[in-house]
Amino acid sequence: MNEKIKWLKEKINGLNIQGMIVSNPVNIRYLTGIDAEGVLLITRKENYYITDSRYLEEVKSIITIDDEIIVSNVTDINQYDYENFFSFCENVGFEENYITYSTYKKYMQKYKANNLEETDGIIEKQRMIKDEEEINLLQKACNITDNCFNHLLKFIKIGMTEKQIAYEIEKYFLENDADGLSFETIVASGKNSSKPHAKTTDKKIEAGDPITIDFGCRYKGYCSDMTRTIFAGFVPENIKPIYDLVLSNQLQTAKDMKEGAEMRVLFRNVENDFKLHGYSLVHSLGHGVGLDIHEQPSINQKNDNTLKANMVVTNEPGIYILGEFGVRIEDTVLITKSGCINLTKSNKNYIIVG
Amino acid sequence: MNEKIKWLKEKINGLNIQGMIVSNPVNIRYLTGIDAEGVLLITRKENYYITDSRYLEEVKSIITIDDEIIVSNVTDINQYDYENFFSFCENVGFEENYITYSTYKKYMQKYKANNLEETDGIIEKQRMIKDEEEINLLQKACNITDNCFNHLLKFIKIGMTEKQIAYEIEKYFLENDADGLSFETIVASGKNSSKPHAKTTDKKIEAGDPITIDFGCRYKGYCSDMTRTIFAGFVPENIKPIYDLVLSNQLQTAKDMKEGAEMRVLFRNVENDFKLHGYSLVHSLGHGVGLDIHEQPSINQKNDNTLKANMVVTNEPGIYILGEFGVRIEDTVLITKSGCINLTKSNKNYIIVG
Repeated sequence: MNEKIKWLKEKINGLNIQGMIVSNPVNIRYLTGIDAEGVLLITRKENYYITDSRYLEEVKSIITIDDEIIVSNVTDINQYDYENFFSFCENVGFEENYITYSTYKKYMQKYKANNLEETDGIIEKQRMIKDEEEINLLQKACNITDNCFNHLLKFIKIGMTEKQIAYEIEKYFLENDADGLSFETIVASGKNSSKPHAKTTDKKIEAGDPITIDFGCRYKGYCSDMTRTIFAGFVPENIKPIYDLVLSNQLQTAKDMKEGAEMRVLFRNVENDFKLHGYSLVHSLGHGVGLDIHEQPSINQKNDNTLKANMVVTNEPGIYILGEFGVRIEDTVLITKSGCINLTKSNKNYIIVG
Repeated sequence: MNEKIKWLKEKINGLNIQGMIVSNPVNIRYLTGIDAEGVLLITRKENYYITDSRYLEEVKSIITIDDEIIVSNVTDINQYDYENFFSFCENVGFEENYITYSTYKKYMQKYKANNLEETDGIIEKQRMIKDEEEINLLQKACNITDNCFNHLLKFIKIGMTEKQIAYEIEKYFLENDADGLSFETIVASGKNSSKPHAKTTDKKIEAGDPITIDFGCRYKGYCSDMTRTIFAGFVPENIKPIYDLVLSNQLQTAKDMKEGAEMRVLFRNVENDFKLHGYSLVHSLGHGVGLDIHEQPSINQKNDNTLKANMVVTNEPGIYILGEFGVRIEDTVLITKSGCINLTKSNKNYIIVG
């Protein structure tokens, strides 16, 4: 049987759950490699993937005999089959953080399970720890992103619009092996950079503008995430101290990130240093990256957990002076026992374009 | 008070529901114009929109006094406030088709409502009927789409890849006033067109290829949706009869679509004509279009309802010969009392490019 499904079966057995309905397509892709619409049923005997005619051929071509997954067309499954999947199961797990309240009620009716049991994101938690193949794919997505950034440094000219830059990023990704964007690119220049979640606009780049570019691609499903704040023409003197403060905290965080580091401590260290200088840290310091662009863990003041080896997370402090400008510097990094390895490796010193 | 919220308050009162938690951001945008992350609370006295610091300023700049919506920062709301929002409410509505099972449980705890009541998509159902302003925005999105199609006819050349065409579509939209794509563009050529939900690939366009292009943009949030199957170099003789069959059914459906037309009958008419010729209709004949690209109603064999004036839906019959080719022709149309008006107006005769 597929190793990841084997893991899941053992895990739920330990929770006194005898079967599970996996509905989140990202979790299904993680467990099986299947990228389609459907539901994965882990039952006492067999594992089933139920999809529809649109995906049937493709799914069958991906699954191997070793996966031990029976692929079915939803139109071939009748009410009797549904009621039989989980017969003799005391508890059947479901994904309470993914399925809607109405789907929950439909599952109750359809599967006639004794008890549908919440599973508290067990698969999402397992997804935090990446295996070698996943790390290779994440590294590849990050390499494409670094190369794109190098390309941008030559491409960006004063007078271009933010949208033109965002559009060049997408074009670069599509022409360089990526599946596409991992999220909607942020290109925020001048005052626009003062919003942590800025939208890309038609504003033209002007001399003296800081330009915050937050972007990433997908490679075989896996995401990259990087931010740099660069400068058009010159670096304004008033921005330098803030840039330096963000950068020194980003570098210090990279030194501190390793297996065993408490996430709330990582956050508080940056928060305290920002406060000491009169600023604040208004968003989390980082987040997991994998098949989703935002995964667990979230590195914030409330997270009591520690980093573990083979987590892949972002390191992204930022300072925003409302209505004036902002600076954010972000890398995607791999946590190891002794430290962290930057998967995105682009230059973080002052960069001038245009 | 905002007219749409006034409608909602009257509607839920009729259902013996005294308050409602609106969580679906598309429904919130429909009711208020707010495009952010947050929750809208319709209470006995006031209406509240609770968001976070990222969106606070922008939301406050959109809302007018006439809207009668109190905008709050989530960090300023304490447990006492939550418990007070729905005091003296017997039943509080929630969106069971949108919120997850775990959010439902959180709402139960947080709001301490007597009873959280399912609302059976009342807002989604209301969204089916478009007002004048919505129709204008939809028409504008469709106009941009028609113009893009005209541009493509000059742009597409034999030897280009499907991805290059998809990318030109996105570029055109961004440079011509659209917010962006309304869904991931499908460009499927040759054999690839035989899949109803094809993915755009690196395949090059060859002479004799049918090219199915399914695409649309957003304009101020509102979506367009159009498909044409065009031909590279020449129209292969074996495809002509199928093209003609799809087109004649698309034109007949356009004649039949008007207030009062039964949706399952519209579907069955096409299905029967396809069967008569040895083919089948493997997807719905159409769907609503608005702030979401796929909205209610779905025009299929199971939908007993009739079309109503001011619905905006697609009309999109298609035939797919597995492993060979496919043809789909789709317009976005406005339903009226006496017929339907095509909002997308591009040519549907044989079109040769390259």
